[in-house]
Amino acid sequence: MSISLDLAERIVRLSQDDLTACAVDNAKTVILDTVGCALAGADEPVVRTLLRTPGLATPGPASLIGRRERLDPLCAALVNGAAAHALDFDDVNVAIGGHPSAPVLPALLALAETRTVSGRDLLLAFVAGFETETRLARCVNFHHYEKGWHPTATMGVFGAAAACAKLLGLRAEQVAMALSMCGSLASGIKANFGTMTKPFHVGHCARNGLMAALLAREGFTANPDAFEHKQGFFLVYNGTGTFDPAAATRDWAAPLDIVEPGIGIKLYPCCDSTHTALDALFTLAKRHAFTVDDVARMDVLVHPLRLLHVDRPTLATELDAKFSVQYCLARGLLDGRIGLDSFGAAPRAEPRLQELMSRVTAAPHPDPSQAIDGNYLTELTVTLTDGRRLHLKMDSPYGRRPEDPAPPELIAAKFAGCAAKALPPRAVLRLREALLAFETLDDVAALGRAWTPPQGIPMHAGAARMPFDPAVVRP
Amino acid sequence: MSISLDLAERIVRLSQDDLTACAVDNAKTVILDTVGCALAGADEPVVRTLLRTPGLATPGPASLIGRRERLDPLCAALVNGAAAHALDFDDVNVAIGGHPSAPVLPALLALAETRTVSGRDLLLAFVAGFETETRLARCVNFHHYEKGWHPTATMGVFGAAAACAKLLGLRAEQVAMALSMCGSLASGIKANFGTMTKPFHVGHCARNGLMAALLAREGFTANPDAFEHKQGFFLVYNGTGTFDPAAATRDWAAPLDIVEPGIGIKLYPCCDSTHTALDALFTLAKRHAFTVDDVARMDVLVHPLRLLHVDRPTLATELDAKFSVQYCLARGLLDGRIGLDSFGAAPRAEPRLQELMSRVTAAPHPDPSQAIDGNYLTELTVTLTDGRRLHLKMDSPYGRRPEDPAPPELIAAKFAGCAAKALPPRAVLRLREALLAFETLDDVAALGRAWTPPQGIPMHAGAARMPFDPAVVRP
Repeated sequence: MSISLDLAERIVRLSQDDLTACAVDNAKTVILDTVGCALAGADEPVVRTLLRTPGLATPGPASLIGRRERLDPLCAALVNGAAAHALDFDDVNVAIGGHPSAPVLPALLALAETRTVSGRDLLLAFVAGFETETRLARCVNFHHYEKGWHPTATMGVFGAAAACAKLLGLRAEQVAMALSMCGSLASGIKANFGTMTKPFHVGHCARNGLMAALLAREGFTANPDAFEHKQGFFLVYNGTGTFDPAAATRDWAAPLDIVEPGIGIKLYPCCDSTHTALDALFTLAKRHAFTVDDVARMDVLVHPLRLLHVDRPTLATELDAKFSVQYCLARGLLDGRIGLDSFGAAPRAEPRLQELMSRVTAAPHPDPSQAIDGNYLTELTVTLTDGRRLHLKMDSPYGRRPEDPAPPELIAAKFAGCAAKALPPRAVLRLREALLAFETLDDVAALGRAWTPPQGIPMHAGAARMPFDPAVVRP
Repeated sequence: MSISLDLAERIVRLSQDDLTACAVDNAKTVILDTVGCALAGADEPVVRTLLRTPGLATPGPASLIGRRERLDPLCAALVNGAAAHALDFDDVNVAIGGHPSAPVLPALLALAETRTVSGRDLLLAFVAGFETETRLARCVNFHHYEKGWHPTATMGVFGAAAACAKLLGLRAEQVAMALSMCGSLASGIKANFGTMTKPFHVGHCARNGLMAALLAREGFTANPDAFEHKQGFFLVYNGTGTFDPAAATRDWAAPLDIVEPGIGIKLYPCCDSTHTALDALFTLAKRHAFTVDDVARMDVLVHPLRLLHVDRPTLATELDAKFSVQYCLARGLLDGRIGLDSFGAAPRAEPRLQELMSRVTAAPHPDPSQAIDGNYLTELTVTLTDGRRLHLKMDSPYGRRPEDPAPPELIAAKFAGCAAKALPPRAVLRLREALLAFETLDDVAALGRAWTPPQGIPMHAGAARMPFDPAVVRP
């Protein structure tokens, strides 16, 4: 049996019985987190640019998260996907080496708003998409990631297609066609990190995944062998000896990836590859009670695969700051925290910040073989003005392993801070309640009304500053 | 200077003065040929499926070639692109190892119908796109092709973006953004050859190229180093040691690729990799005056790179026939010709055809090093029932080199046969006249009216059989 068809049959068979309480809880958590990120990103330049481009904002029934426009579902998937990833703040997944939810949820929501879909059905489709993209990621990573693909997009397109195909109730043969077609739609290279094209990747793959499912329903054809073919996805995107086809279905849903290793919630709105360094900084600052005035220099060793896209000692653009471990460490030291307001033209232009950045060095970790769990390996040395050298080695950021989940109060506070950028306080509370009761919704279209800002309220009327400070509550 | 920016400046600088008479003639010829192919493909299943899929047929100002619907330009680029390649009958290019015009022209036409564009301006933009995709193809081929990418799509997206950016009059910085963005949009794998996804690749890249140009106009950002970046297009899509970045601008427009090596018009509506075998068959049949009844067996050696996608001794789907050198040789022998009516359910089901196919063997050519000019190398041995073995080795099909162009009367006859599938005879003549006088058009939107079928005329009222027989007129 071909890989597409094998996956398709598993996607079709996945049922509510497979959704353990933990699976439902985790799915609800990342959905809440993704909606929050999309609310925070709803008025970012990438979104505004998409909306004024002819053909990308066709009116229709699907809501935009945190905006009043309603668009054709394919356009809504594109825009919501880009919004959800615009701040690079959405959840992460170890198998993908990227973001699992932003490609899948916007595609599903846009589709759901064209029909009546219960919360439980949407959760099941979401988990099917999540499982598909993370299993396929196990086939190709980490060569796929290292090579320069943006796996959030190149895996996400399969997740979006699987989720939408599941929600549409397609037959296995049709699901297989959608997946095989996605082998011809996957794209997104890391060279475009740090530009609008990065969040665009996510919207584009959400749109493409939804489109593939819709085309498959109409009888569109692709090659069921598109993964394992000699000129198929694995050999073309990865290359001989760099992938494991059996991983596509090995341990499928046993347990579900969303249960084990589970979900990863980002607590800082910048590139994931800076987070371990930030956690190390805040931990050292707490342990040794130093502040910015006490620090002479900071030297960070980052896993070479991750340093590749966060080694930016100087900043050419505003977005560069989120991909600069030097900026993030300087900013975190200066403010004692990192939040949505840590980035932008004004924070970046501060003379003190510039001076601090010049005292940060970043280098590839000399022994990447020490890395466990996803190449997060980071060592930070803080040299104080009194000559003391404080050192911390960390394997991963907080909140990335089942045994160390992000505390619910921090997730809630992150959502509140994000949502406040687009919605008034009462709407934030109502939306949060609806999302926390996701499995009881009779029709998820109710969410579309809940995250539409009331008329007459300007965007970003809410607080831009996030109301929590991870550095304060962390051990 | 980055490759994107270097290309962008050349695209911006390209002027009417660079268009020699040969360039204009050749551009007009492939435009006429592409329009003809789109007319012939206008009611193919791939097109009908796209048009009934939600979100892919948004109404708007842009015409469909050979259909009465008018769509949003992005949708029109998708549908016309797929139609132009639906029959795999559109023009070919040696550098790309694929089809240069079907990705570019539909994007340009859709854009042109939103403004007033002269024939000369459209020709210039078309040549800019053609030059861009063929220069980039020289950077990555033939490794790119061999690996399994569908270069028509993965190069075509750059051609479409360059052409649309030129027509929009973007600044060089914006053109560079559009090209760099396309490094994150290129997709299409050969595993999906023989399915609807293959022509979809072409429409998809036409739409993506147009979208990238429109986004760049609105200020969208990408990395100007997206080609040469360590995680950029060249290294991610090709890999170390398999590309030549300098080829992107080497000999740019000196001469234009559309002048030298020039254009390649397909005379058979099936995969290009079957054409040399067909020309060899018809040439041998003419020289030795044999017919189907005289033939015991046919054994063909095809360059291994090309045999990869045309070695189909049995047919699973209708489309398979166009990608089967065994079918094409059997069909050509049976009928003494290959035309639009050589494919489809009825021709394929003939018992005599089935029996003939079983007497055709195909194998990789044992010495591909003999190949010149694009891996067309083919050797055909026809064994007659009287024991004679007739043999012919050919380097490429007819009509693929400047010194052996396809005769104008055959191109005209091909157009007439294709156009008759969608338009009544008088409309075919009027459209042909308009296309032959392309450079005199004040507004190319006039073409949109010329290729729209009159109301009340059913699709395919015209002749399905092509009114010419290459085997008869060929030496």
